[in-house]
Amino acid sequence: MKIGYVQIAPVLGDLEATIGKLDSLRNEFKAADIIVLPELCNSGYNFESMEQARVTAEDAQTGPFVRYLCSLAQEHRQCIVAGVNERDANDCQLYNSAVLVGPDGLIGKYRKLHLFMNEKDYFRPGDLGLPVFDLGVCKLGMLICFDWIFPEPWRILALKGADIVCHPSNLVLPGLAQRGVPVHALMNRIFVVTANRIGTERDMTFTGLSIIADPKGNVLAQAPEGDPQVRVVEVDIHLARNKMVTPRNHVLEDRRPDQYHELII
Amino acid sequence: MKIGYVQIAPVLGDLEATIGKLDSLRNEFKAADIIVLPELCNSGYNFESMEQARVTAEDAQTGPFVRYLCSLAQEHRQCIVAGVNERDANDCQLYNSAVLVGPDGLIGKYRKLHLFMNEKDYFRPGDLGLPVFDLGVCKLGMLICFDWIFPEPWRILALKGADIVCHPSNLVLPGLAQRGVPVHALMNRIFVVTANRIGTERDMTFTGLSIIADPKGNVLAQAPEGDPQVRVVEVDIHLARNKMVTPRNHVLEDRRPDQYHELII
Repeated sequence: MKIGYVQIAPVLGDLEATIGKLDSLRNEFKAADIIVLPELCNSGYNFESMEQARVTAEDAQTGPFVRYLCSLAQEHRQCIVAGVNERDANDCQLYNSAVLVGPDGLIGKYRKLHLFMNEKDYFRPGDLGLPVFDLGVCKLGMLICFDWIFPEPWRILALKGADIVCHPSNLVLPGLAQRGVPVHALMNRIFVVTANRIGTERDMTFTGLSIIADPKGNVLAQAPEGDPQVRVVEVDIHLARNKMVTPRNHVLEDRRPDQYHELII
Repeated sequence: MKIGYVQIAPVLGDLEATIGKLDSLRNEFKAADIIVLPELCNSGYNFESMEQARVTAEDAQTGPFVRYLCSLAQEHRQCIVAGVNERDANDCQLYNSAVLVGPDGLIGKYRKLHLFMNEKDYFRPGDLGLPVFDLGVCKLGMLICFDWIFPEPWRILALKGADIVCHPSNLVLPGLAQRGVPVHALMNRIFVVTANRIGTERDMTFTGLSIIADPKGNVLAQAPEGDPQVRVVEVDIHLARNKMVTPRNHVLEDRRPDQYHELII
């Protein structure tokens, strides 16, 4: 199957402009079975105010950006993962979320568990755990940006059977996640697609270098630092079902949970 | 304080020869406060038989290699971490262990939790958890070689307050641990000293490239691939007490243990 990323600069507070950018690139990613877009694609990242965060948020079921993604997914017969500034329909709280949409519409969402810096002022921490979605051809989990620095969510997704972790990002710490992501892929024997953004919003510059890593920790594709790029690569997703790192070592079954109780303190 | 590694080739089945090698290098590591030696230093690694594994094993309290280490530690007023083929005094089982010795003798030991390949034929899996030893100047934990590929033990040692993880190794998978170790150091904001061995034993070649990593994931020192090397570097061990990866993100307190229950399944 074909997996890939779209590395672009979403436009802060201008959804139409962002959709225009995606539209201009759609021919490049229409053949992907799973394509990953950056974090907070519908809003941009570096809000000037709570008000700006609120007006750019949308409902994950009915919002205009998610509806646009659903139309793309339907037309391309593909799955799309994208970061969304989500406003909860019930309590009107904001979440830094990722949606998974397919040809038949919204499949599910994930809400970022580990908020970075000033995100703590705008978003509620995720409250939906770490869901894994069975797409038939593979099982898919999602993490968002700074989640990468916590080994726990990667491990949990692998334990729940994820073959691929889609990782919409707005990374700013130079090069750190790009070193860590292939190591997480290797330790859990999974595929990872990190779709990072580029560009500058006020005092923040995003670091690009989007990455696709395989279950052996190989980097299959990496984007440039400052330019937009779409990459789609063909992979054998079932490599992620082989958890043997040597003929006698299974990366999950060799764990020693009887010795791991401190992990949930 | 000064921390370092000794990268050598222990001699399979010839403890005297191994001690001779260490003796010839002792001037290079005598100034270290903490020095780390490779895995299974007293025996070598690639046993031809259970018999060879047994005759090269020793008691961690009274064995000749540990007594030699204690004499070095006393003379140099330093702590030494070394891999030891350990025979348990009670049940005569073998463990792939690491000992920590200081100027006053044996401080403690760790038994490898995650056995690699044919080690499963010779050793019992570790049964002493993941101890952390308070040396006054710092808190020290130990992992051994293949343990590196499991994120759980690193995290547990950090949660228990380890400032430094000493990591005696006999690594054979080329370059993988050397990519992973700095990422574990970064994710847990700790120092790591990986003392790998070199040389070939029958069909196994060990990969050298011993490494010292700091809490920001920087590589402070790295040995060559095939040659012996002693490196000792001066570090501010208290950097490991600062767990803030950004002004608003603490790598341990930002964890979401309420969402992590799958980890101990």
